Amino acid sequence: MVLFSSLTPVFVAVLCAVVVFIHKSFQKKDRDSKTGSKSTAESRPWVDEDLKDDTEINSKDEGDWADSEEDVPHVPYAPERYPADVQLQRSREFHTLMNNRRSVRFISPEPVPREVIDNVIRTAGTSPSGAHTEPWTFVVVADIEMKHRIREIVEEEEEINYRQRMGDKWVSDLRKMRTSWVKEYLDIAPYLILIFKKTYGMHASGKKKTHYYNEISVSIACGILLAALQNVGLVTVTSTPLNCGPPLRLLLRRPANEKLLMLLPVGYPAKDAVVPNLTRKSLDDIMVFV
Amino acid sequence: MVLFSSLTPVFVAVLCAVVVFIHKSFQKKDRDSKTGSKSTAESRPWVDEDLKDDTEINSKDEGDWADSEEDVPHVPYAPERYPADVQLQRSREFHTLMNNRRSVRFISPEPVPREVIDNVIRTAGTSPSGAHTEPWTFVVVADIEMKHRIREIVEEEEEINYRQRMGDKWVSDLRKMRTSWVKEYLDIAPYLILIFKKTYGMHASGKKKTHYYNEISVSIACGILLAALQNVGLVTVTSTPLNCGPPLRLLLRRPANEKLLMLLPVGYPAKDAVVPNLTRKSLDDIMVFV
Repeated sequence: MVLFSSLTPVFVAVLCAVVVFIHKSFQKKDRDSKTGSKSTAESRPWVDEDLKDDTEINSKDEGDWADSEEDVPHVPYAPERYPADVQLQRSREFHTLMNNRRSVRFISPEPVPREVIDNVIRTAGTSPSGAHTEPWTFVVVADIEMKHRIREIVEEEEEINYRQRMGDKWVSDLRKMRTSWVKEYLDIAPYLILIFKKTYGMHASGKKKTHYYNEISVSIACGILLAALQNVGLVTVTSTPLNCGPPLRLLLRRPANEKLLMLLPVGYPAKDAVVPNLTRKSLDDIMVFV
Repeated sequence: MVLFSSLTPVFVAVLCAVVVFIHKSFQKKDRDSKTGSKSTAESRPWVDEDLKDDTEINSKDEGDWADSEEDVPHVPYAPERYPADVQLQRSREFHTLMNNRRSVRFISPEPVPREVIDNVIRTAGTSPSGAHTEPWTFVVVADIEMKHRIREIVEEEEEINYRQRMGDKWVSDLRKMRTSWVKEYLDIAPYLILIFKKTYGMHASGKKKTHYYNEISVSIACGILLAALQNVGLVTVTSTPLNCGPPLRLLLRRPANEKLLMLLPVGYPAKDAVVPNLTRKSLDDIMVFV
C-alpha cells in the first residue's frame, strides 16, 4: 500500500496522458471520417478509392460549370432557328421517339455496325460537364471472352446481393430469384458499354485536380447516350453494378481515377423481347408551372 | 498525503470511468458520422436534409434498376427497325445536332410556346430510373417576380462564393469577377427550369421509401432534357446552384424530400450571343474499344 501510494502521482499522470491521447486520437479519427481519411485510403488503395464519395461540394466550389472558361476567347453563336410549326412538330416527334424507349433485357446477338456505335459515343461526348472537364471514358467491349469475364464478375456479385437480401427465405425462392441475377445478355449483346467517371485529373504540375460534379456530368452524358441509342433503333438496360466497379476496373485496366458508373449492354432487341407493362407519370405529376 | 493516498483507489476508478466514457462516446460519434446521425438530422431539419449524401449505396441495394418490376406482367416489345443506311444516317445527323449544342448565357427574352416546353419536359420524363421511381420534379418558372427572387438568391450565394475564393485579391479584381456572379439571364430567360430530385418517397404505410440512385436518375433525365431542348432550337446553361437549394426549395414550396439538383434558364439564344471558343475531346480520347 505504501509502494502503491508513492506511485500514485505517476499513476495519475499516466492515466491523464492516456485520457488526453485517446481524446486526441478520436478527435482526429472523427475529423478524418468527415473529410475522408488519407491514411485509410492509402492502406486499402482501390477499395476506398472506389467507394469514396466524390459528389460532395463545399461552399467554395463553382456553381456555374463554365467559370474556368472566363479567359477563353468568345465567338458568336447562332444555332438553327426553326419556324414555330416546325419547332412544335419536332418537339412532338422527339417525345414520341423517346417515349418508345424501354429498358430491354432481351438483346439479339445480331451484329451492329461499328460506325453506329462510334457515332453514339461521339454524341454522348457532346455533353456539358463541370468546368468542361469531359470526365468520361466509354469502354466498348465486343470481345467474346472479355464479355464473359464481365458477366462472371457481375453475376457473382448479384448472387451475393440476392442471397443476403433473401436470407433464409432464399432457398425456397431459388427458382424465381435465379432469373434476377443471371444476366445472359452480358454474353449475348454484341456490345457492352461500360461508362467510367473520371473523379480527378492531373495538373501539369502532377497535382490532383478534382473534377467537381463528375458523377452528375457523366450521368447527363449517359442520358444523351440513351437518346442516341434510341434514335438508331438500339436497345439497352441501364444498370449500375456498383459493387463490381473495382474488379471490372482492374479487368479493363482503367486507371485509379476512373470509377465505373454504369454498364449498358447494347444491341437490337431480341425477336421475342418483352418488357414489364409499366406506365409513366403524367405531365401534371412531374411538372409544376409557376 | 495520507488523505490523498486513501482517496487514490477512488481517483483511479473515476479516471478509468472517464477514460471508458470518452472512448465510448467517441466511438459512437465516429459511428454516427459514418452512418449519418439521426439525432443531428432531427435537430437541424432542412439544412441537414439538404446536404445529406444520398447517392451512397450499400451492398444490399439493387444493381439492376428494374428488379421491382418482377411481378408486373410483361408485354412484347418491338421498336422500329431502321435499314442499315438509314440507321447510319440517323446516327450522323443526331451527332451533328447535339454537337452544335453549347452552354449559352446570353438568352433572348422572346417568348417560347408553352406547348414546346411541355413537350420537352414530357420527353425528360421518359428517362429510366432506379426501380422506376421517376424521382424528378421539373419546376418551370415563367413568373417575372419569381424569376427575380430566384436571381437574388442565386446571386447572393454566388457573390459569397466569389468573395471567399478571391480573398484579399478580390477588391482589385472586382470588375472582372463581377461578370461571374451577375446572372442577368435569370431575369431575361422566358423560363427557368429547376430540376428537383426526390430523395425518398412514401410507402402506403407512411414509412419512408429510399429512392436509390435518385441523383443519377435525375441527371440522366437532365441529359435527355438537354437533347430535347437542342432538338427544338432552344438554349440553356447547365448550372448546379447547390448552396441555393434550401432557400430555393422553400421559395418554390417544394416538400422536404425534394432537393434542387440543377437550374436551367431556357429560351432562344440572344442575337449577340457568344460562347467560349472551346473544343471537345476526340473519339479516341473518350472511347476505349476492347
